[in-house]
Parts: sequence; C-alpha cells; structure tokens
Amino acid sequence: MARQGRTGGRRGRAQANALEKPSAPPYITRNIPPYELLGEVDLAQIESNADLILEEIGIDIKDDPDAIAVLVGAGATADAERVRFPRGMCRELIQKSAPAMFTQYARNPKNNVIIGGKHTVLVPAYGPPFVYSREGGRRYATIEDFRNFVKLAYMSPNLHHSGGTICEPVDLPVNKRHFDMVYSHIKYSDKAFMGSVTAPPRAEDSVAMAKLVFGDEFVEQNCVLVNLINANSPLTFDSVMFGALRVYASHNQATMVSPFIVAGAMSPVTVAAVAAQSLAEGLVGMAYAQIIRPGAPVIYGNFVSSMSMQSGAPTFGSPEASQVINIGASLARRLGVPFRSAGGFTSSKTADAQAAYEAANTMQHGLLAGVNFMLHTAGWLEGGLAMGYEKFVMDADQAGMMRVYAQGVDMSENGQALDAIREVGPGQHFLGSVHTQNNFKTAFYRSDIADNNSYEQWVEDGSLDAEQRAEKVYKKMLADYVPPPLEEAIDEALLDYIKQKKDSFEDSNIS
Amino acid sequence: MARQGRTGGRRGRAQANALEKPSAPPYITRNIPPYELLGEVDLAQIESNADLILEEIGIDIKDDPDAIAVLVGAGATADAERVRFPRGMCRELIQKSAPAMFTQYARNPKNNVIIGGKHTVLVPAYGPPFVYSREGGRRYATIEDFRNFVKLAYMSPNLHHSGGTICEPVDLPVNKRHFDMVYSHIKYSDKAFMGSVTAPPRAEDSVAMAKLVFGDEFVEQNCVLVNLINANSPLTFDSVMFGALRVYASHNQATMVSPFIVAGAMSPVTVAAVAAQSLAEGLVGMAYAQIIRPGAPVIYGNFVSSMSMQSGAPTFGSPEASQVINIGASLARRLGVPFRSAGGFTSSKTADAQAAYEAANTMQHGLLAGVNFMLHTAGWLEGGLAMGYEKFVMDADQAGMMRVYAQGVDMSENGQALDAIREVGPGQHFLGSVHTQNNFKTAFYRSDIADNNSYEQWVEDGSLDAEQRAEKVYKKMLADYVPPPLEEAIDEALLDYIKQKKDSFEDSNIS
Repeated sequence: MARQGRTGGRRGRAQANALEKPSAPPYITRNIPPYELLGEVDLAQIESNADLILEEIGIDIKDDPDAIAVLVGAGATADAERVRFPRGMCRELIQKSAPAMFTQYARNPKNNVIIGGKHTVLVPAYGPPFVYSREGGRRYATIEDFRNFVKLAYMSPNLHHSGGTICEPVDLPVNKRHFDMVYSHIKYSDKAFMGSVTAPPRAEDSVAMAKLVFGDEFVEQNCVLVNLINANSPLTFDSVMFGALRVYASHNQATMVSPFIVAGAMSPVTVAAVAAQSLAEGLVGMAYAQIIRPGAPVIYGNFVSSMSMQSGAPTFGSPEASQVINIGASLARRLGVPFRSAGGFTSSKTADAQAAYEAANTMQHGLLAGVNFMLHTAGWLEGGLAMGYEKFVMDADQAGMMRVYAQGVDMSENGQALDAIREVGPGQHFLGSVHTQNNFKTAFYRSDIADNNSYEQWVEDGSLDAEQRAEKVYKKMLADYVPPPLEEAIDEALLDYIKQKKDSFEDSNIS
Repeated sequence: MARQGRTGGRRGRAQANALEKPSAPPYITRNIPPYELLGEVDLAQIESNADLILEEIGIDIKDDPDAIAVLVGAGATADAERVRFPRGMCRELIQKSAPAMFTQYARNPKNNVIIGGKHTVLVPAYGPPFVYSREGGRRYATIEDFRNFVKLAYMSPNLHHSGGTICEPVDLPVNKRHFDMVYSHIKYSDKAFMGSVTAPPRAEDSVAMAKLVFGDEFVEQNCVLVNLINANSPLTFDSVMFGALRVYASHNQATMVSPFIVAGAMSPVTVAAVAAQSLAEGLVGMAYAQIIRPGAPVIYGNFVSSMSMQSGAPTFGSPEASQVINIGASLARRLGVPFRSAGGFTSSKTADAQAAYEAANTMQHGLLAGVNFMLHTAGWLEGGLAMGYEKFVMDADQAGMMRVYAQGVDMSENGQALDAIREVGPGQHFLGSVHTQNNFKTAFYRSDIADNNSYEQWVEDGSLDAEQRAEKVYKKMLADYVPPPLEEAIDEALLDYIKQKKDSFEDSNIS
C-alpha cells in the first residue's frame, strides 16, 4: 500500500549531500505481534457503539456550514449544527479510499518514514508553551528553544521525525510564528515534519513552504506534511480544525484526526465508553477528509488521559489510559488506517521518577499496542504544558530501547548460539567466547543516560542523578550540532516567501 | 489445581482477629490475555535447544553425590559431577506431578495467595545488603531496616507478600540472622513469606518456625513457604542450593528454581540462547524437586540482566531482558508450572528517573507476559545491592497500577456507558452526569506519589520531586504502623525456639 515517491527537481537537489547518520533505521519495523487486549466480540461491540453514537446522538460541527453540506451530500442528516450518520457510512467512506500505509517524505530521502502497518515512527512532543531545564527552571518557550529542540530531534538517532509545534515560540506573534516554525524544521533538520493547523491560511502557508522544498507537483502527489486535527471532545468539530483539515486533504497531505479526551470531563469515566466515543469522533474526521480528496492519507489518533479525583487535573501513565491506547490500535487495524497514540506522557513538573514511570508506562503499552505514529515520544512534561530539555534526551534514549524490543528475537543459528554453550560449558564464563566476541558490539542496547557503574564509581563521578546526566547529554548535543546542508536557492526562496507574507499583514497575538 | 487448605489448630487461632485491610484484593487475577512474543515454532525450538543442552552438554552438580545418585536413578547419566539427561526426561517428571497452580497460606487467611494460572503475586525485593534513603544515604542494612520493610510491605495494599530476605540484616551474625528474618515476617506482618536458603539447616529452621505458626500437619500438607533456589549459571547447581531445595521439597514447601543470568557472562549474549539455557537449568531443579517429593509445588524462575559494554556491569530495564521475561512466561505455561520473573529492577543508585524508567519497563513487560510471582517488585536499587525506602513506596504505587490494568476492560452496560453519552451529548462536559457521579470514586487508580497539580500549586507545596514525596509517604506509613495480632502462645513458642537454637552454636560471619 505504501506509495512510491518520484524524485522531483528541487527535492532531488535538496536531498543531495545529506549527512550520514548513526546506524539506527529511519523508522521502526515491528517484527513482533501486537498485543490485543480485547477480542473480536468486544471490539465489534465498541464499533457498534460508535455507530450508535453517530446515528442516534450525532456530532456538532460548529460554524462550518460548508462541511455540514458536504457531509449531508454524502448521506448524513443535519439538524442545524448537529449531524448524524447512518450506520457504517463513515467506515465505508474511509475503507473505500484511505491508504492503510503511506510514506511521508523528508527532504533527506534517508529520513523518509513509512506510516502504518508494521511500522512505528517516534516523534517529539507537540504544543508546550513552556520549557523546563535544570539550569533555567520553567519559563515561556522562545523560537531559540524551538530551534534547539529541532536540533536535538535531528541528532537523536531513535527519533524519526522533527515533529510540529515542538514548543510554542511565544516570543513571536501568534499569527506569524508558524512561518518560523516550519522554516526551522526545514533549515535545522532534514527529517519529516508537521504543518500548522491553528488557522486555514497557516495551513496554506505550510503547504506553500513545503512546495518550495519539494516542488509543486511532488507535494500534490505525495505526503510531505502530517497534520494534527484535534476534535473538541465530546463529539464536536469546529471550523478552525475542519478548515485546516480541508486545506491539507485537498493538497493530498496527511491529517491525523485525534480526539483529545480527559475522561470524566470530555467523556464518561469508563474505558469502553472512551474508546467508542473516540472512534466515533475519529470516523467523522477521517470520512470528511476522504470526501474532500479520496485517497488523501489519514491517521486515526487517540489522546486520552484519566482525571485526578482530588483536583480534576489530567493524569498520565495510568492503567486506564494504557487500555484505551491498546483498544484504539486494534480499532485502527480493523478500520485499515494508521494509528497515532501514546508518548512520554507525565504530569510531573521535572524529569524525576514520576515523569519516568508515567512516560515508560505509556511508551511500552503504546509499543506493544502497535502504535504507528507516536507523537509526544520525547520531552513532554507537566501534562503537555512544558517541554523538558533533560526529559527530551531521556525519552529519546527510551525510544532506542523500543526500537530494539520491536526488532523481535533473533532465532537464527547465531541467535540460538548452541555452539557457544557447547564451547563454554557448565561453570565457565562466556566473556571470552568466540560468540560473545563476535556479537558483543551489537548485542545490547546502549543507553547514553543510564549509569550502570558501581556505587563507588558513581560517587567518584559526582553522584549525579539521571536528570543531571541528561543535562550534560543535551548540552553536548547542542554544542556538537552541525546543520544538514540545505540548497541555497531553496533557503532563499523560503526566506523570501516568509518576508513577503509577514510584511503583508499586521502582527497579532489574539489567535 | 489449587489445593484447598484445612484450618489447623494453631493456625486457626493465629488467624483470628486479623485486621481489616484496604480494598485491594490479596493477589491479582488477570482478566487480560498474556502477550506472546514468540509463536509455536520458535518456542518449540527453544524447548528443543534446552533438551539438547541437557542431553549433550549436561549440567554440573557440585559437591552433592546424593543428588547425582537420585537423578541417575531417575534416568540421567553421570560422568563425575557432569550429569546428562535424556530428551524430555525432566519435562516428563515435572508434568507428571508438579501443580500448575497452588495456594500459599498466610497466617491471616485473607492474605493467602494463589500462585500460578491467571494470578499474579507482587512481592518485595530480595537480598540487598545495603539500604538507601534520602535521609540516610547508602549504608549497610540492619534488622531494624528489615523490620521496617516488612512493615511497609504489610501496609502496602498492592503488595501481596512479605517476601524473604527483604534486606540483609548485616548487624546480625550470618549464621543466625535467618531466625530474626523469619520471626520478623511472622511478627510484623500477616502476609505470606519466604524461608531461608543459605544452608540446609537454616531451611530446616524456617520449616520448624512455620510449623509453630501453622501446625505440623498443616505444613506437611500445604505450602506456607516459597523458597528461592538460584542456579549457579551457566548450568551448575551446588550442594547448598540443592540442599535447601531438598529440605523444602521434602516438607512439601514450594521451591522457585531461578537461573540468575547476566547475559554475556553467565550465558551467550543472545536472547534465544539465554532462554534455552535458563529453561535447561530450571528443568533440572524442578525435576529434582519432583523426584524428592512428587507434587511439591515448584515455580520456574527467570532472572536475566543484560551487560554494559562499557563496564561489564549488569544493566536493567533493557529491551533484551524484557524479551527473555516474555519468552520465559510462555515456556512456563507450556510446561504447566507457575512463573517467577520481572520486578522493579534498576542499576540506579537513587530513586531517580533512571530507576523509574528501568523499573516500569520491567514491570509492565512482566505484567503482560503473565508473570505469576513477581519477586523484587518493590524497593530494588543499584542492581539489587540496595533496598530503597523511597523506591519501595514508589514501586508499590506502580503495583497498584498493574492491578488495575490486569482487571481488564469493563464491557458491562455501565462500562459501555451509552446512556451517559446520550445524557450529556456533544459539546457538554461529563463532570456532573449521573454516570460520572456513580462511578467516579472507583473509576481511576489513585496514586499516592504522583503530583498532578498545576505548576503553581506544586511550587506552593514546596516544589518536591517524586523522591521527596515518597520520603513523606514511607515515613508516615512507619509512623502509622499497627502490628497485626499474633497469638501470645505462638509468639512465645517462636521466641523459645529461636533462643534455644541460637544458644546451641557459636556466632559466625563466615557464611
């Protein structure tokens, strides 16, 4: 199902001279089966419940009569802004034309990613208005932070994507910062990236800038942008998100339709209900994209948090959220579209043990569920309000562990290693055996962050905790950063476009 | 297969007046399927490789001619201390008589645990000679620490067992400290516990003390002690461990035969080889127990660490170790015995993010693999050299999350909650809905450690990280501790036994 790319003119040039990267592959290919928490009967029940929700209760589409008209034209019924769908209508639209798997092209073809099927793409966190570091504490994010995180993602061999709003550059005007974000992804990285969704014209700008890199025709025929379309749960879409979806789908770019649910507030508190409601919301968004342009890539997304009984705050890394992630992945496979979920979620304010337990719980369950696009893999702190420098490199290290687990078990003769056991025998050690010597370098994942030394050695090294060691790691990465080459003509074209557009309207911080 | 207990005389009295405990069940019953990393063909290959190892390479049994004679009598061949087994011999012995599932009785019957099948028992860490706390740093463990951790395990609703050598009381003589350890488990807790294995007479003392609590006949017919028998990998057992195994098996107590493998040192570096070697070692120990006393409970154990390429130190929470845990669980199910593995493993020296990532990775993979007895669930630090006070309560909190995940998904009408979605409808919130009100109290797992508050609230509360909050939690628990009632006659009988035995030989710290 993966589409094959054609190397366009500008794109071909942009991809020349790309730097060699460390040995990790550009995305994960899972040689392991998915973990299926629910069986056929329960999954069919949840699908039926989603259909019931769409048929009987319906969803609201706010301030977007065009979208309502188009959906009614495809078989839905509307009562003012409430739209209802006959059973199976959305599913049928999606299954008729949406690809099960597609390639997102990067300006360095070595970094193209396949989204869907047995593949998993690990992506930085998205959206935090704050940054956190040991050195600077918590403060508003700036465009310099944005560039820093793009650089860190570029240099992290186990992150496969540059992400989107890796943090909000709040030192720039709200209505113009998307230019600097998209430019930074292109300039400081050569991995695939995401477009702006905060207003339809900003989506158009994202597409226009991508065309300056990849060429007009290439963009219209291939996916170079993946874009996050959040539902306003429960059961509501608005003209901003549907407007951005329209822009991207009409240019054949990928839209990721993601209900954002804090269970108890935006949905019932129970897992089966969250799963059904989330599916209903996703079905509508993805079906709409297929009506706009049949065949435009869509991704079913799931973002679910449970809620603290004490404070009403969202909580992360919880067993309930892990269950919803698992069910969502099964539902996406049955529907036949890629699935986005999980990430290094936490409510913690620092990169402490809470942050790590919660992130690890979510990432491991996401991996085994078979998530295809793991937005928020690295950096997330404070329920998504802060992007952490130390947390980023810690999570990126965990990303490497996910890659190794997903490789599965080597059952070759070398993997079975009976000759090694024969050679060494009872009571002896394997350190010097031929098999160990031959396999040692690649046998185990190597962490940059973990300290496995003796207590005495650790004390001699300064008794640093993981956060302190991570601080050293990210600072060294930023110091060592070398930008990927970017053809001068493309760079100039991008800067010209940005200048012209920025000069054409006033700065605003309203929205 | 679970044996039903008969309430003996002393046991009946000891169990009277037991305190009411919080609402968590005494052990986990998994309503979720196990995750199977490998399929039939690969698992059969690993079983065949284990048979090949036993038939062709054999294992060494050191300084234990009796054990060799018994195994030869059952069909093995011996060349000095090297013992080889015909294909299938060990498996057949085990499958003929070992229970797939059994009950371990606690002195409070509410805390009896079922080991095997769909059940998971979460158990504190075992063996650390050091303790670590924020307050006291790292220092040698004492009997006071031992008592403290027994108390903490007793008070942790999601830990199901009191464990064994919860830490080494190094302030007591090596050859007498087992009396104080076993006594502490009985006196300060009423959960099930483990016996001493460091010398056969200490195993005899453990059984004798258990008989003072449960009655002679009850012990001979039911499991009241689970005991850890480590192989000296690769492929070696010694007379100490086999001697302890003989004592326990002959009294019908459970033995957990656990290869302890740092891959690269005690086995080849590859996952499939570790799995086959570990199975070979486990098969011999469990078969031996079945020869000693057919039907005595056995548990197949797996303790596997990968190795740091930089230092040779063991590493934890690694993807390779998680794979071995998964395969071990599948092999145990195929063999038909309970499985012990996983835990809150880490190489970290403190309860920092490294500790939490590594612990969470191992615990979640252990949970989904279907581990039945998770020794080392709580407290483990520094590769098992230190027991952490803060880490203990953090891990115990994670234990609660495992319980909730394992409950599975509520697919009842209340779980599906379609009426709630009907009631609330698009664009509204669920906070005040009837369904939310009815389910809110039990909907989500509540963590004692996580801080989900806003950044501002967190700062107002002192900007504490998870380790600092955990310090408060364990100190409050110890301050609030109330001992479970213990019949005076039993207490006196235990103290008499200990005094008499301790007076009968000199203190020694040699072994």
